Amino acid sequence: QVGHSKARCLCLNGMVNHVKPVLIEKLEVYTSSHSCRNMEIIVTLKNGEGKRCLNPEAPFAKKTIEKIMKKQKECAVNL
Amino acid sequence: QVGHSKARCLCLNGMVNHVKPVLIEKLEVYTSSHSCRNMEIIVTLKNGEGKRCLNPEAPFAKKTIEKIMKKQKECAVNL
Repeated sequence: QVGHSKARCLCLNGMVNHVKPVLIEKLEVYTSSHSCRNMEIIVTLKNGEGKRCLNPEAPFAKKTIEKIMKKQKECAVNL
Repeated sequence: QVGHSKARCLCLNGMVNHVKPVLIEKLEVYTSSHSCRNMEIIVTLKNGEGKRCLNPEAPFAKKTIEKIMKKQKECAVNL
């Protein structure tokens, strides 16, 4: 199995370290599995701007999720 | 549009406040949009155990994401 750990990974063509949270429509976190040893984060952008692989090791990934969660809380208060 | 804000939401049949992080295969965060005003978090469980809507307002949702991110970091060190 050595050498095949990335065989079914989704993020093979590079990752970005940063995406504006306001542009994010959907964020997917794929945890480590038999088909891909890496955790992968795929961001779907608004307005049909496509998808980006977000580097899970970038501090930004964690911050983005926190921002989304925080925004949700603020919005819930305003409803 | 009033009264239709939940028309295209995905989580209409109840949400859970807790899922064991180790059972999570995939976590999807749908941000607030025109089709659904609520942020929605959908968790796909391992071993074909199906999907669950995770309550975004539960402190657990944030903690789960943090745990997944932390695990990734630890695993990256061990590789």
